[in-house]
Amino acid sequence: MRDHGGNLDAARVRYGEGEWIDLSTGINRVPCPLPAIPASAWQALPDRAATAGLIRAAQAAYATSAAVLPVAGAQAAIQMIPRAFPVGLARVLGPTYNEHAAALHEAGWRVEEVGELPALAGADLAVVVNPNNPDGACHAPEALRLLAGQVGRLVVDESFADPVPELSLAPEPGRALVLRSFGKFYGLAGVRLGFVLGEKAAIAALAAMAGPWPVSGPAISIGCAALADRDWAAASIARLQDDARRLDGLAARAGWRLVGGGHLFRLYDTPDAAAAQELLARRHIWSRIFPWHARWLRLGLPAPDEWARVEAALRR
Amino acid sequence: MRDHGGNLDAARVRYGEGEWIDLSTGINRVPCPLPAIPASAWQALPDRAATAGLIRAAQAAYATSAAVLPVAGAQAAIQMIPRAFPVGLARVLGPTYNEHAAALHEAGWRVEEVGELPALAGADLAVVVNPNNPDGACHAPEALRLLAGQVGRLVVDESFADPVPELSLAPEPGRALVLRSFGKFYGLAGVRLGFVLGEKAAIAALAAMAGPWPVSGPAISIGCAALADRDWAAASIARLQDDARRLDGLAARAGWRLVGGGHLFRLYDTPDAAAAQELLARRHIWSRIFPWHARWLRLGLPAPDEWARVEAALRR
Repeated sequence: MRDHGGNLDAARVRYGEGEWIDLSTGINRVPCPLPAIPASAWQALPDRAATAGLIRAAQAAYATSAAVLPVAGAQAAIQMIPRAFPVGLARVLGPTYNEHAAALHEAGWRVEEVGELPALAGADLAVVVNPNNPDGACHAPEALRLLAGQVGRLVVDESFADPVPELSLAPEPGRALVLRSFGKFYGLAGVRLGFVLGEKAAIAALAAMAGPWPVSGPAISIGCAALADRDWAAASIARLQDDARRLDGLAARAGWRLVGGGHLFRLYDTPDAAAAQELLARRHIWSRIFPWHARWLRLGLPAPDEWARVEAALRR
Repeated sequence: MRDHGGNLDAARVRYGEGEWIDLSTGINRVPCPLPAIPASAWQALPDRAATAGLIRAAQAAYATSAAVLPVAGAQAAIQMIPRAFPVGLARVLGPTYNEHAAALHEAGWRVEEVGELPALAGADLAVVVNPNNPDGACHAPEALRLLAGQVGRLVVDESFADPVPELSLAPEPGRALVLRSFGKFYGLAGVRLGFVLGEKAAIAALAAMAGPWPVSGPAISIGCAALADRDWAAASIARLQDDARRLDGLAARAGWRLVGGGHLFRLYDTPDAAAAQELLARRHIWSRIFPWHARWLRLGLPAPDEWARVEAALRR
């Protein structure tokens, strides 16, 4: 298994059991409330009507009429896409979420990481995470649409795009495949729900690969309710925006420089990321560092009742 | 989407809304009780410790120390296996669950359906469903072990094997890949949980394809609790055995001949399957018929409080 955030069990072994605050992921720590889940959602296979309802909810939330395939998390799409299309040269705009390159590589693609958007041109398949993880870098839809014409297939991973709909290609994906995560913004990553949006033929190919019941009954119930709750979404975006500023302030006072980040995580340049992670971990706050950068530390945003501990830990 | 049971929404459209009894699937209609699901199972990505616990629960329930990969239903394994290994000639012992041949075909395999176990020999990949769906035909583990030496790779789909552990290859899969369904026997098909068991290298290849979080947090909680509840399993097997005899009696009085079946469904030869299905559907009991056989009708087993309606419908 590749390096990820969320490996809190390893932190517990190293730094002890207790009330951990897991800021090592970009998962919203204030989840959307769970709806009542009918017994049939657990017991029966999801039927076509339920799946169609989820697709409509996703189309409304993502402001699109494009074809939509519900999958068991954006990660499921990352696993499938490399095997759904003929292999060739893939380019990934990096550094970014490491599963894209890894899944492409495992499926037999030649994979190059490039540092600038225009350098993706010419690839048979190009991957852009927008906004990017971990640095929050953003690309305008026009730039991505231009790029889509210069590559065989463009994959835009919008796992962190819920708070910035103006950046999304979902309303008009054209020939791009757009990945959406449900679990991150809605704070329900354990549900395993995500979506791929794009042109009909590509979505049909992925649907054939995913099989008839890729998403659980409870995931359908929860997805339908949460995606329709635009009040919760608006309030959460406002809270996350305030919280991002608040965390940046604490980090600045600790002597960390903001590299970037979005509404769900912030990336800081620290004197020594491993030392900073350890300092937080001793106070049972778990963070994300990167094997390929000795100074960067990424933090998710605390829930309202977790700020006091985070402030104390960063004040020192 | 291929023909399946469980398409109750289509039945509702045709025969009206109401309190339907869905006997069109082989899903236990008395589900294992749901445990309390911790908030963290919904909110966080499943960690390695949770997944390891589920694997141990599966190993105990299936009496095996073989490598185990949890997947989102046995169907997920059916989708992955054809793409995890080099394509060639696949043979499927049929007639059987139609997704095997379809998934192999879609992944580029040449697929032959054969009618007898020995005719599978010589295939690069061979599929046996044991006990078989829809006719309940069973094969002894010794016969399957012999066959495993005569094919490139043997896949044994044991989706309906929970009540007949003596038939299972799980304790000693050798080079075979064994598929187990969680949702059918435990009556929780909407959870999307299943397992692949086999030798380490093949399971590792499938794990790489499935990605880091193929199974939801609630599925892990539920799977761990249900697979450990051997009392529930024993009582359910006894009830299903009694219920199968009871349904066979009703069918015989209706003039239907038992073709076969296991603990979770019964297959009957009727004068006219479509007419029999319609007769039941008018009483809001949904059954399974097969486009390739005009006389066969398959029924799952009713829950205790559903028998009166099933008896009335079959008495006529």
